[in-house]
Amino acid sequence: MEQTAQTPPCSETLSADDTGSQRIRTNFMSDNVGPVCPEILAAITQANVGDAPAHGDDAWTAQLEARAAEVFEAEVRVFPVATGTAANGLALSALSPPWGAILCDESAHIFGRECSAPELFTSGAKLCPIPSPDGRMSPAMLARTIAEVQAGGRRLSRPAALSLSQATEWGTVYSLDQLVELTTLAHDAGMGVHMDGARFGNALAHLGCSPADATWRAGVDILSLGATKSGALAADLVVMFDTGLAEDMERRIKRAGHLWSKQRFLSAQLLAWFEGDLWLRNARHANEMAGRLARGLLRHPGAMLPFETQANEVFAILPEALVQALEVSGFIFLRRTAPPGVHGTLVRFVTSYHMQHADVDALLEALASGE
Amino acid sequence: MEQTAQTPPCSETLSADDTGSQRIRTNFMSDNVGPVCPEILAAITQANVGDAPAHGDDAWTAQLEARAAEVFEAEVRVFPVATGTAANGLALSALSPPWGAILCDESAHIFGRECSAPELFTSGAKLCPIPSPDGRMSPAMLARTIAEVQAGGRRLSRPAALSLSQATEWGTVYSLDQLVELTTLAHDAGMGVHMDGARFGNALAHLGCSPADATWRAGVDILSLGATKSGALAADLVVMFDTGLAEDMERRIKRAGHLWSKQRFLSAQLLAWFEGDLWLRNARHANEMAGRLARGLLRHPGAMLPFETQANEVFAILPEALVQALEVSGFIFLRRTAPPGVHGTLVRFVTSYHMQHADVDALLEALASGE
Amino acid sequence: MEQTAQTPPCSETLSADDTGSQRIRTNFMSDNVGPVCPEILAAITQANVGDAPAHGDDAWTAQLEARAAEVFEAEVRVFPVATGTAANGLALSALSPPWGAILCDESAHIFGRECSAPELFTSGAKLCPIPSPDGRMSPAMLARTIAEVQAGGRRLSRPAALSLSQATEWGTVYSLDQLVELTTLAHDAGMGVHMDGARFGNALAHLGCSPADATWRAGVDILSLGATKSGALAADLVVMFDTGLAEDMERRIKRAGHLWSKQRFLSAQLLAWFEGDLWLRNARHANEMAGRLARGLLRHPGAMLPFETQANEVFAILPEALVQALEVSGFIFLRRTAPPGVHGTLVRFVTSYHMQHADVDALLEALASGE
Amino acid sequence: MEQTAQTPPCSETLSADDTGSQRIRTNFMSDNVGPVCPEILAAITQANVGDAPAHGDDAWTAQLEARAAEVFEAEVRVFPVATGTAANGLALSALSPPWGAILCDESAHIFGRECSAPELFTSGAKLCPIPSPDGRMSPAMLARTIAEVQAGGRRLSRPAALSLSQATEWGTVYSLDQLVELTTLAHDAGMGVHMDGARFGNALAHLGCSPADATWRAGVDILSLGATKSGALAADLVVMFDTGLAEDMERRIKRAGHLWSKQRFLSAQLLAWFEGDLWLRNARHANEMAGRLARGLLRHPGAMLPFETQANEVFAILPEALVQALEVSGFIFLRRTAPPGVHGTLVRFVTSYHMQHADVDALLEALASGE
Repeated sequence: MEQTAQTPPCSETLSADDTGSQRIRTNFMSDNVGPVCPEILAAITQANVGDAPAHGDDAWTAQLEARAAEVFEAEVRVFPVATGTAANGLALSALSPPWGAILCDESAHIFGRECSAPELFTSGAKLCPIPSPDGRMSPAMLARTIAEVQAGGRRLSRPAALSLSQATEWGTVYSLDQLVELTTLAHDAGMGVHMDGARFGNALAHLGCSPADATWRAGVDILSLGATKSGALAADLVVMFDTGLAEDMERRIKRAGHLWSKQRFLSAQLLAWFEGDLWLRNARHANEMAGRLARGLLRHPGAMLPFETQANEVFAILPEALVQALEVSGFIFLRRTAPPGVHGTLVRFVTSYHMQHADVDALLEALASGE
Repeated sequence: MEQTAQTPPCSETLSADDTGSQRIRTNFMSDNVGPVCPEILAAITQANVGDAPAHGDDAWTAQLEARAAEVFEAEVRVFPVATGTAANGLALSALSPPWGAILCDESAHIFGRECSAPELFTSGAKLCPIPSPDGRMSPAMLARTIAEVQAGGRRLSRPAALSLSQATEWGTVYSLDQLVELTTLAHDAGMGVHMDGARFGNALAHLGCSPADATWRAGVDILSLGATKSGALAADLVVMFDTGLAEDMERRIKRAGHLWSKQRFLSAQLLAWFEGDLWLRNARHANEMAGRLARGLLRHPGAMLPFETQANEVFAILPEALVQALEVSGFIFLRRTAPPGVHGTLVRFVTSYHMQHADVDALLEALASGE
Repeated sequence: MEQTAQTPPCSETLSADDTGSQRIRTNFMSDNVGPVCPEILAAITQANVGDAPAHGDDAWTAQLEARAAEVFEAEVRVFPVATGTAANGLALSALSPPWGAILCDESAHIFGRECSAPELFTSGAKLCPIPSPDGRMSPAMLARTIAEVQAGGRRLSRPAALSLSQATEWGTVYSLDQLVELTTLAHDAGMGVHMDGARFGNALAHLGCSPADATWRAGVDILSLGATKSGALAADLVVMFDTGLAEDMERRIKRAGHLWSKQRFLSAQLLAWFEGDLWLRNARHANEMAGRLARGLLRHPGAMLPFETQANEVFAILPEALVQALEVSGFIFLRRTAPPGVHGTLVRFVTSYHMQHADVDALLEALASGE
Repeated sequence: MEQTAQTPPCSETLSADDTGSQRIRTNFMSDNVGPVCPEILAAITQANVGDAPAHGDDAWTAQLEARAAEVFEAEVRVFPVATGTAANGLALSALSPPWGAILCDESAHIFGRECSAPELFTSGAKLCPIPSPDGRMSPAMLARTIAEVQAGGRRLSRPAALSLSQATEWGTVYSLDQLVELTTLAHDAGMGVHMDGARFGNALAHLGCSPADATWRAGVDILSLGATKSGALAADLVVMFDTGLAEDMERRIKRAGHLWSKQRFLSAQLLAWFEGDLWLRNARHANEMAGRLARGLLRHPGAMLPFETQANEVFAILPEALVQALEVSGFIFLRRTAPPGVHGTLVRFVTSYHMQHADVDALLEALASGE
């Protein structure tokens, strides 16, 4: 898992200058360290007029569900919450009982990055991690795991949910064919399918298909659609294509403390994010920055890229000395545990909607100059 | 519990005119239907500069803890979250194990208004409601309940936490002496003390003492300090006076999905709320509007006020016909179940930081004209 | 709740003589301190032949379900477990989701005597205690509580289960008419009905009706049928009259650690308990002993009986001096917290299937002689 | 996981003859299908004298703790429960908070065979399965997993407990050196160590060391000591070598419904099991039968044994035709999912304390005759 690269002091101040100068030495730590998209901040301000019914009975939330139905070309139920961990946990709790098994890739955020939030939200379902080379589980491994859980019989956990991360935690993207093959296996086993879409927009930008093709038409029942990493202040949308799963959802949300009294400010963020395809434009831009960075890294003799760069995350194996040089010179990024037997250090660079060519090039130049 | 008074259509539109016209017929439903305080919205905008470390490692959060220490004249650990239900649940989870008993007034929000969120956050602690005439439990009833739970012995729930709502759900406020008497009983029984301060500012404005006097000096170990009802967008602060309780708190927050990646936008709200005592000025104003409304109601022959109006909630028993007339003429407020044997209808009017004399007077005039 | 009357040292030894002499000074602490009924111990021994499929696939368990169907004149699903707390928790978990409300009398074992086991088994449902004079809630209070919970709306706990203790914790028994009135209210509100029958046999012996009349014909959906207090070693039977509730029940039982590998030894106890109406004979005898004790107490000038003695528990208010005299002379029983304003000490005497007239009379004589 | 080999009808009857004839065709399904050891059944009968304090305040339970202290040459706290799943869950709940990670072998019973019971008992801790060739995790893999979890930092799950199965689920046994190496890694990381000893006696019989050497001297903090598989009716003992972990344990047990009112009948089983080393004699005998079976299988040309036979479980890969022949001729055993690429069928034979040479030889002869 992660070790945080040392953060330079200036990043801890409020001065625009500092943060300005900081921007020169780019922060590739994650796509959640950036600012809120101006359009979204403006929408929050515009929503701040007079009174509005509390707890989701406001007009913005009603409009959001209608908008999502257009975006996904289907009747949907949507539930806005502030974080992706909440969205994942709530979605999984609608798919799996406490005695259900939730199958996911071993790299899945729900398995390794959420402090057993899924176990909390589902009241203790069993997470079954499935090994894969690049974050994309294989149908063969999924079929084998389903068979093993089913073999436990009527007194042990039953396969209840398949959770797929799109884009994956290794920056790769499932193809539509791969999705269909996996979701068909899951449905045939009576399981529901959840998609962790913290970076769904980035995956969609890579696939170049419609939101509907990448979700319900590919067998997804519930999507956690993340906006925070792509320009929102704090907003994630649970999108239910199987609307029957929405029963009692508001109670699940309330008892987890995720029901905002002033929910219009959650829904307004997402309305602005969908408006004029802002969400896709932001995702495309972040992907382009990642592609630019990946191409640049590949030109560097000492760099190796273990995974295809298909979304907005670039993973590279670099000589430790070079990694330290980058850190010292003010770049911020994540170190990851390298696979056994690999020489060098595995690092992650995440690009964002607000980065410029110069931000990426600064890193590449630093690398080239062997800083 | 509650039935929502019918909401006039115009309240569901986005038009500033409508909401403007709506403002004439005042919305007394709750103090969470209003807009965000301009100072707080401005602070959010100002915080939107460049990158900042995620998940609470930002400078705003660090500053918030320092600011809270000044406000409460004590070393404190603070944890900002988006909702009061989350703050209450997280605070209680730090005080009670799953086999603990949490004692609270039968009118407490944690007992009747949070969909068993405390049970979720504490992994199943036992809530023990204590009857009271006006939301303020008596020391005698508390002592009796503690004794009964203790008598269960080493194999049944042990008294773990006392939760006091300040202001109470009936708009009353515990005096400092009452607080000390109750918290002393709790501490003598080895219990921790939580204060549900969703309207703590309003209580403080009534008491006219210092925040320290009203909390840790009165025996409070953890405070849920609510800002959303007093001008914030979505912000509640868990304030730990017993800093030892903070261990693993970030893990509790993360696994409940309440850790914001862009936490600066939570902390910035609260910093602005404390700035220049905005929180107290908002609370004082709301209390004044409630007092004005209460005095006006008392002048009405048909009205009876069952509880003292000490914060920003006014409860009145009115003839049903009058209640319906108010609803039809566009006022919004809550109906509550009247106590047995009471003639008339029990209603709740909540005043807010942004209401004007005209808003209150409009209701009084409607009452007078027997609309 | 309870304080244990001091236990004389000899009760802690293994000597048959001691326990013999102990029997002279009767142990009225509870009906769970006694020995196993000879017929049941014999059945365990007889079941100890050769191999048998594990985890409930044995012939004894299959036979038990058939036998229960005869006893209750209905198709039922049954699940044997070792304790009443497990049976109650498992039954309630089949009726209430985590966001459901479980309504019960304030004296209910599930509320005050199980260390929040129902909260554990239901993953955090909300228990709502309803006050009553003698352990039997009134339809009016139930209707009022249902209305209050329903008024919370679609985001707060919904009324999910009514739990009735038969016999009650105060030794009283609901009449069939009372049951029907309460269960009708519950079903009309969409709730399921659970009966905590830890002493169901004693209630049935009092009512003199058929098991079917006292359960499903009176609106009960699930019964926790307790055998341990009436002669079993450790056995309680979850009886589902609404067989649809049985789905995934074996998984609930397994994950709570309540699935015995050698389940034949659980089922064999219950088969013997039903055989020749042993369960009813034991219950009738215990009730007779309680009646004899109650009549004797009523003849004592200093004694007051606050509740009708309808099952096998006798509650009496006695002068403290007399209570201590009884304790010192070796009688064992429970002290309970007396209601406010009551002079004297409230004590509980529980009679059992194995007590003799001499056991009861010994206490009455001690009382008479003012020991 | 498992598919149950077809059970011949006669095994479902109560006739002593049938079960007798059944005994000729041996039941190798598990060591929990057998009868109760005569000495243990006798102890239950002997404990059935007069009254005894309920809920563990009896003399048998007190004696059991003293006896366990002798057996393990240390001060211990012990808690008898009816099942191994309960013992494991309760033990783990004393070691891991809900936000803790529990590391175990991927074959561990707590991971794959308990329907997420550990998640229930710990209120949702995260189970991390570690791959191994034969059920015994390597120090290198454990160290790597600990490092990965620790790298998550202060907001993600922290390594809380290491759970080791001894004997393992593949019939192998950790050596004392292996145990010390693993438990040292765990303790250095601030973790507690749990041993799932469902077949601890069999492991001990293999190791030939003292119970103390195989547990606390090797770094074990809590042991789930299983007796049911080795002759008890239903009894498992939680043995705490770190007595500080016992705080509130009785509350954990009660709220899970695992506190027996007539606990003397749990403790009496375990006292008899320890008496005259019955537990070790039973284990040695079962191991001998397994050894005899393993040696016999190795002589069969078509059989392959993938794991060392060190306890009382024999795993063999046999031609499918031969497996079916054995099933048809009345032998009962478990089929397991064979590893990828393996030709033939993986089956498990479990031997028990009560099997005779003839029982084992019958299977070997059937194999030889290619039935």
